[in-house]
Amino acid sequence: MEPKKILNISVDCVVFGFDITNKSLNVLLIKRFLKSEDAKEVLINDYVLTGYHVYENETLDDTATRVLKELTGLTNQYKKQFKAFGDPDRLMNEKDLAWIKNQEFNLRTTTIAYYFLLKTEDVDLKSNTYQPLWFPVSNLPELGFDHEKIILEAYEDLKVKCLSEPIIFKLLPDKFTINEVQDVYESILGIEIDNRNFRRKLIKKKYIIALDEKQVGISKKPAQLYMFSKDIYQKMFKKNYLISI
Amino acid sequence: MEPKKILNISVDCVVFGFDITNKSLNVLLIKRFLKSEDAKEVLINDYVLTGYHVYENETLDDTATRVLKELTGLTNQYKKQFKAFGDPDRLMNEKDLAWIKNQEFNLRTTTIAYYFLLKTEDVDLKSNTYQPLWFPVSNLPELGFDHEKIILEAYEDLKVKCLSEPIIFKLLPDKFTINEVQDVYESILGIEIDNRNFRRKLIKKKYIIALDEKQVGISKKPAQLYMFSKDIYQKMFKKNYLISI
Repeated sequence: MEPKKILNISVDCVVFGFDITNKSLNVLLIKRFLKSEDAKEVLINDYVLTGYHVYENETLDDTATRVLKELTGLTNQYKKQFKAFGDPDRLMNEKDLAWIKNQEFNLRTTTIAYYFLLKTEDVDLKSNTYQPLWFPVSNLPELGFDHEKIILEAYEDLKVKCLSEPIIFKLLPDKFTINEVQDVYESILGIEIDNRNFRRKLIKKKYIIALDEKQVGISKKPAQLYMFSKDIYQKMFKKNYLISI
Repeated sequence: MEPKKILNISVDCVVFGFDITNKSLNVLLIKRFLKSEDAKEVLINDYVLTGYHVYENETLDDTATRVLKELTGLTNQYKKQFKAFGDPDRLMNEKDLAWIKNQEFNLRTTTIAYYFLLKTEDVDLKSNTYQPLWFPVSNLPELGFDHEKIILEAYEDLKVKCLSEPIIFKLLPDKFTINEVQDVYESILGIEIDNRNFRRKLIKKKYIIALDEKQVGISKKPAQLYMFSKDIYQKMFKKNYLISI
């Protein structure tokens, strides 16, 4: 039996995935589709984030973990609770009201929003019952509820956070090239970075470890592979604040 | 008549104030005091944050603004929603249960926590019906509910944020000395900063404007006063991300 739901508190998950092949920061969305009762008219045809009510007996973090697992099968991904959204009218537009009409749903629901960072290749889309799809953050489809706002605020938080914490490595494979690190920064920040300068600065960092390996499956000029050492990073920054403002 | 409350959603406010005289980052707390029915025993004698239920018709931001205004009379202060706390057992210890026994309160309440930044001197403590008190963040009293956790998480967020955004100026008067800026950083970060180096770097920033004024009321060597220009700061950093990791 399903545990008791808290009807006016939900968790919504912004699942960010980096598509390393297409150098694109994407977000995972679920289709919302509804026809009129006579089936002649399409009432709703848009996308939403994945989310669910919080159960009475679980923490907010547990809810987020559960929702991600149900959508993607994945556990132990980087997650961050970044904001609660509780405007009185956040579920009140016409389509949203039609959508939740037959659901056990409190119209004044506050949602606690999380974002996750992972690699698009880690999500198996084909055998997924929710049929989620990846969309570039820079090119979102029409979104239901206040989910566009939630995604954009998650994205702003990610932009700020990626400049002060080494979270971008959550979007990359364990072994990566310097160009791939640059690709992630450029995708997130929407800027072009001078390659030589970036490379020079990055390989100087003690927590970027050069491996005795090169890319495989690249016919010419396979690039040097690196890894990120969380241990070294944490030791370096333990009390070593960098005042940059 | 009071608007309808959402019984399981509240807002709690961590009011940070900088005490410029004592160079101390403080937090504003309210006493919680309860005697046993026979008045022979003190059951509760600790402190809590100020907070209240969200009304059905208001946004979370509105609730936070309302709570701060009621406690301090202040409006238009810097505020940040930093985290929701919703553990199932967050209000379940013995003292908390005794405290909320006669109140209209859902035991599974999720609270949306905000912090505010202001100057301790801006709050009039004397004529305040809530009798709040300032405590140094580094020396908190016994706290009820999960409020110690909430304060410490707010403080962590502030530490990170003050390194990437010019929010510390919210803790200072409009006109300040370089030493006072250093005092704020040292108080927040709990570190000592080399004064000459800090001064040299700070006065070079275009958004730190030297005024044609010096401190008043200082008998010898009054220091030069400066102000922070938000306009210049915003123009400088509009698309100029600083990748420092």
